[in-house]
Amino acid sequence: MPDKVLVLMLDGLGDRPSKELGLMTPLQAARKVALDLIASEGMTGLLDPYAPGVPVGSDTGHLSILGYDPKAYYTGRGPLEALGAGVDLRPGDVAFRVNMATVDDDWNLVDRRAGRISTEEARELGRAVAELAEGFDSVLKFEYHPTVEHRGVLVIRGELASPSVTDVDPHREGVRVQMPRPTEGTKAARVTAEELSRFLLRAKEVLERHPVNSSRRQRGLSPANAILPRGGGVMPRLPSLAERYGIRSVVIAGGALYRGVCRAAGMDVRIVPTATGTLNTDLRAKFEAAVDSLRAYDLVFLHIKGTDTASHDRRPAVKRDFIERIDGELRRHLDAVLTDAVVCVTGDHTTSSLDGRHHGDPVPVAIAGEGVRRDDVVRFDEVSCGRGSMGRMRGLDLMNVLMDLIGRVEMYGE
Amino acid sequence: MPDKVLVLMLDGLGDRPSKELGLMTPLQAARKVALDLIASEGMTGLLDPYAPGVPVGSDTGHLSILGYDPKAYYTGRGPLEALGAGVDLRPGDVAFRVNMATVDDDWNLVDRRAGRISTEEARELGRAVAELAEGFDSVLKFEYHPTVEHRGVLVIRGELASPSVTDVDPHREGVRVQMPRPTEGTKAARVTAEELSRFLLRAKEVLERHPVNSSRRQRGLSPANAILPRGGGVMPRLPSLAERYGIRSVVIAGGALYRGVCRAAGMDVRIVPTATGTLNTDLRAKFEAAVDSLRAYDLVFLHIKGTDTASHDRRPAVKRDFIERIDGELRRHLDAVLTDAVVCVTGDHTTSSLDGRHHGDPVPVAIAGEGVRRDDVVRFDEVSCGRGSMGRMRGLDLMNVLMDLIGRVEMYGE
Repeated sequence: MPDKVLVLMLDGLGDRPSKELGLMTPLQAARKVALDLIASEGMTGLLDPYAPGVPVGSDTGHLSILGYDPKAYYTGRGPLEALGAGVDLRPGDVAFRVNMATVDDDWNLVDRRAGRISTEEARELGRAVAELAEGFDSVLKFEYHPTVEHRGVLVIRGELASPSVTDVDPHREGVRVQMPRPTEGTKAARVTAEELSRFLLRAKEVLERHPVNSSRRQRGLSPANAILPRGGGVMPRLPSLAERYGIRSVVIAGGALYRGVCRAAGMDVRIVPTATGTLNTDLRAKFEAAVDSLRAYDLVFLHIKGTDTASHDRRPAVKRDFIERIDGELRRHLDAVLTDAVVCVTGDHTTSSLDGRHHGDPVPVAIAGEGVRRDDVVRFDEVSCGRGSMGRMRGLDLMNVLMDLIGRVEMYGE
Repeated sequence: MPDKVLVLMLDGLGDRPSKELGLMTPLQAARKVALDLIASEGMTGLLDPYAPGVPVGSDTGHLSILGYDPKAYYTGRGPLEALGAGVDLRPGDVAFRVNMATVDDDWNLVDRRAGRISTEEARELGRAVAELAEGFDSVLKFEYHPTVEHRGVLVIRGELASPSVTDVDPHREGVRVQMPRPTEGTKAARVTAEELSRFLLRAKEVLERHPVNSSRRQRGLSPANAILPRGGGVMPRLPSLAERYGIRSVVIAGGALYRGVCRAAGMDVRIVPTATGTLNTDLRAKFEAAVDSLRAYDLVFLHIKGTDTASHDRRPAVKRDFIERIDGELRRHLDAVLTDAVVCVTGDHTTSSLDGRHHGDPVPVAIAGEGVRRDDVVRFDEVSCGRGSMGRMRGLDLMNVLMDLIGRVEMYGE
């Protein structure tokens, strides 16, 4: 029996058929060898990350697939994003996911991602916001951490810190940004809303006059002149994978959120410096790190974000090509990995490259390795795997299935 | 992305194979073009209206498929039937489903449906029962509403009205009818049982001597000489489909129950005067009304009862022929509808035309439209759809799946 598991998690993998690809999904249209080999040599099925027809975010999708029911453990995206950014969150700390965005003088939202600002420019602007936070005179303590591109994390500490305030990010452009309001009648919620509003107004002043934004304006680019918090929450406490299964586990991911969810599950994080969390990531280095990690870990979770990025950009052909690139890298290692590990490939949710949105369609899953049942599905895609021997199952059950293949699930009963 | 959904709900659609049809189900035996086209161009699967192997009624089946867990919202058939009959139920009102039946002098049940009495005759008899109710001297207020054929609704109002009494209808012929008994120790249950018993005995006297029954006896038909309440309950409060999904929705159905469940879900009711809720319904008018309703509504729910009626009558060939008629009417509109709507066809439960009873076998489901995944199933029936890419899912999840296809389900997480 193998004693290792490699999970290849392709973000936003599931899709819907498009005319551009002859009424196929990107996964159906892709020429792929390694992914189809996993399907051919193993068992396949469809996975509802949370429940049929319910679109999940990457946070709730990953929690489910790692075996944590979001109903019990999801307290908003902020804490997971903060963990992923390496922020040391303590009990009672409140964290928000933040977008650096472009707003006009009346705070109407012009661009939620500030023209998809580069990580380098956003970091330079982020340093100014972090300095503002450090010196900010308030009963609460503020901390700002830029992560990737327009994304960042805002942490609020103190006895009166509360997650119970409205999202500032309206999620839609053309809408006026509203300052945070308390969502419950506590003093903490009121104080947090007031102090956070004051901080956001000051941050806009700092960002407006920053040289990076002057330069962006000169180049005809949208200035990143506001930070928009959302998804506030208090850090959840998850029973670790080590407690549950007695395993050593590690994640390799470019995006902060994925590292955060996995760290919350007690996994180690292996940094691949050239992993970017976007389409231009260093797939070769990530796969090499994953294969190497199988020597020291029982579970290696390799997360690749670009499939989701291409979907959000509504580019099914780009997604198809990126899947082919992933397949090419996987192919270099697959035979070796399958000699002593179980390999599982799946996604955390469907992102339609027709409308660029998350949807509740199930994602395909394929698992191969010694001792794994073989069905007669030979292609890894949303339709072929629907005929597979695993049937349609919930994401919440996947980790038990994988851990049981390496004999790590305790018997229920005797 | 399409922004409309047409649900074609064929009551009691699922069936079991019969020798009469060469070991096929009526759906397998039917020659059908439009239904198979939906399967060919879309995705298919099997739906357990409630749970595998659990036969559901039309009420619990419809609640589930509209997304309302009967465990939370089902308080007996009476309130839904009453809503469907246009009765204005107020909080605290208790409603019972009622059969007009034939009993002998000792209240032994001879015919549960009084020889499938016509709607016209039952209404005339019902008026006499309604008059009795209006003048009935009691601490409770009684109200009687005949609906279709032998069916009716009995409403009991007042502070001491209670749903906690035994069903009077024994559900089986040849058995002695028992007057209602309280099922809990409250004063309301005791008073309701006593007053309801008194009312039922008086109703029998009124019905026995009614001219309609004299005429029926002369023609050799069973008299409708008793009313048998069952399924007592208090009106449930359902969160509407508009609240859940922000949609405008409408039902087209001949039967009172189906209109009632849908009205409870906040749907509008479009009346087609020639829709009868039986095999002789005006299918053409119903389909035309449904297609027309797609202009003003986001969700159109077209319910057809005849498939279930034929099953209860144990006539598989009649069911097959009726399916072919439905298919012919659907065919006239399908291409036009599919240009901007998602079409879903399914049933609310299996009714076996072998034994005329509801069963817990799953029902087939097929969904087609722009952006819907295509599997390689090309026939719409209980067996072919079992190989479809939707797998086997719960009825409770269907509405999320449909609403997600038109982008109406909010993301859980970010």
